[in-house]
Amino acid sequence: MTGKGTRILSGMRPSGKLHLGHYHGVLENWLRLQKEAECLFFIADWHALTTEYANPRDIKLNAEEMVIDWLAVGIDPKESTIFLQSHVKEHAELFLLLSMLTPLSWLERNPTYKELLTETKDKDIHTYGFLGYPVLQTADIIIYKAQKVPVGMDQLPHLELAREITRRFNYLYGETFPEPQSILTEAPKILGTDGRKMSKSYNNAIYLSDPPEVAEKKLLTMVTDTARKTRKDAGNPDVCPVFTSFHKLYSDEATLEWVREGCTTAGIGCIECKKRLIPRILERIEPIQKRRKELEKDRHLVWQTIEEGSSKARSIAASTMEEVRKRLSLE
Amino acid sequence: MTGKGTRILSGMRPSGKLHLGHYHGVLENWLRLQKEAECLFFIADWHALTTEYANPRDIKLNAEEMVIDWLAVGIDPKESTIFLQSHVKEHAELFLLLSMLTPLSWLERNPTYKELLTETKDKDIHTYGFLGYPVLQTADIIIYKAQKVPVGMDQLPHLELAREITRRFNYLYGETFPEPQSILTEAPKILGTDGRKMSKSYNNAIYLSDPPEVAEKKLLTMVTDTARKTRKDAGNPDVCPVFTSFHKLYSDEATLEWVREGCTTAGIGCIECKKRLIPRILERIEPIQKRRKELEKDRHLVWQTIEEGSSKARSIAASTMEEVRKRLSLE
Repeated sequence: MTGKGTRILSGMRPSGKLHLGHYHGVLENWLRLQKEAECLFFIADWHALTTEYANPRDIKLNAEEMVIDWLAVGIDPKESTIFLQSHVKEHAELFLLLSMLTPLSWLERNPTYKELLTETKDKDIHTYGFLGYPVLQTADIIIYKAQKVPVGMDQLPHLELAREITRRFNYLYGETFPEPQSILTEAPKILGTDGRKMSKSYNNAIYLSDPPEVAEKKLLTMVTDTARKTRKDAGNPDVCPVFTSFHKLYSDEATLEWVREGCTTAGIGCIECKKRLIPRILERIEPIQKRRKELEKDRHLVWQTIEEGSSKARSIAASTMEEVRKRLSLE
Repeated sequence: MTGKGTRILSGMRPSGKLHLGHYHGVLENWLRLQKEAECLFFIADWHALTTEYANPRDIKLNAEEMVIDWLAVGIDPKESTIFLQSHVKEHAELFLLLSMLTPLSWLERNPTYKELLTETKDKDIHTYGFLGYPVLQTADIIIYKAQKVPVGMDQLPHLELAREITRRFNYLYGETFPEPQSILTEAPKILGTDGRKMSKSYNNAIYLSDPPEVAEKKLLTMVTDTARKTRKDAGNPDVCPVFTSFHKLYSDEATLEWVREGCTTAGIGCIECKKRLIPRILERIEPIQKRRKELEKDRHLVWQTIEEGSSKARSIAASTMEEVRKRLSLE
């Protein structure tokens, strides 16, 4: 499906320190992809502005913390290009050019857009930039002529829109860009300590940077099968966030069997069950945290990495833009 | 009102060779302004794409012909900065950033936008870029911190929108940009040979580049007071396009008196009347055409002028963007 000849683009909004939801949902994927293909991973700081324009103060620090986590888990700048969107101005130029040929109705009818407009109550996102989010996203992808974009189900409509805009460009000005295809990655849904989706905004997250004792405490107090009121009640692992989100990922077959048996017969308690899990998680986080601490001490190096990546990205983007300008008879 | 400490920005879409409508409507103004203030004049090639995206082939040549006319009439690169919008990428970056904070409703309610959407039948301008035209225009102006923008009445709503976007930026991120003020220039309305507004698309224009015999022929066959059917009928100069558009600009008081008297009494014929006018127009065009021919021979020099101006503009724009990025905590 992929290969070092295949170029993959993926990005994350700078949300600060990353948690286990990001780790299992995105980063493990990236680690696999970077071995299989040519990867470009970017910090979507301009995209962050679509919702955070009124309060952009944390974007830069968040970007820094996020990249520290990327590097700490093993995203390797020698293998992958790590860059900052706003350091490659060519994205803005292509965004502007694509905006000219993108029908307004395509954007207005975008289901994700309509949903977010309705759902977002705490900030005003009725802006021109928020409507144009998918146009900028298209520019992000095609400026590198990326063939593949790893996305979750919810992002599929955006990628379909990116393909439509790409087709329209190719139709108007001649075959220039490959139509980006999705790599639909079935990311495990990681639940937080309160049983809802793990998210910074729910304050239920276990961070890659949490000290072991903090992570342990969070896991020990994490909700389990809420129907299991007392130690004597039998539980159901299939509705237990600890089981579905973590045991399934971290425990071997024998342990999973032990949990199923013990939980459904009230043979084991929740604390007992968690105590078999927690060391596995801490074990996984430990080397990440070690590397993280080193990186935290040398933030200059982190930015140097971002700058070197941005410079690599820029040279690809600049060469694409030269072609684009010729196609549009602007040069 | 102005002064060399005042910065003025003005632009024109690359429409190719310019006609007398442009000359009296815009260029004479620019010639006056360049003596009074610090002027930046730009070729709005990205703006041209808002309507010409489907057929951009002529934009570059049109830009070249237009700048040749600018230089031929006396816009002086030593006095004014002449530049190409698409050669200053910073406009695109600021456009993107301003898009984040511009409420969609401000753009949708823009009367000029609604009017053009209804009126334009020959191309599809229901695009994201066309809706965002005033955002790009705002970026064009404030990236140079221009205090004054010469505009016609019809452009006043756009400038009001530019001020609103500027205020919103200053409110969100701190005082950064002056609010651009209009210089309302009462440009004489120049009519074409068929009595409608002079326009390339009406095929009724007298171009600055028309050879004298062509200009003469166009003027000799230009419609006059349509109610004056024969030489024996008396005419009304106030409804005669030749009188209102040209005699008023080119003739002295005595000649104007002679026309009024002769026309209203059928004492002179239209050809006779035009023959007093035509030499004045040819006289005005002659040095422009002489300079034009020199410039046509050295298109490399024309582009060198554009490039030098663009480089000057870029250095102002780049320094503004540094400040903007700091304001938004992106750097």
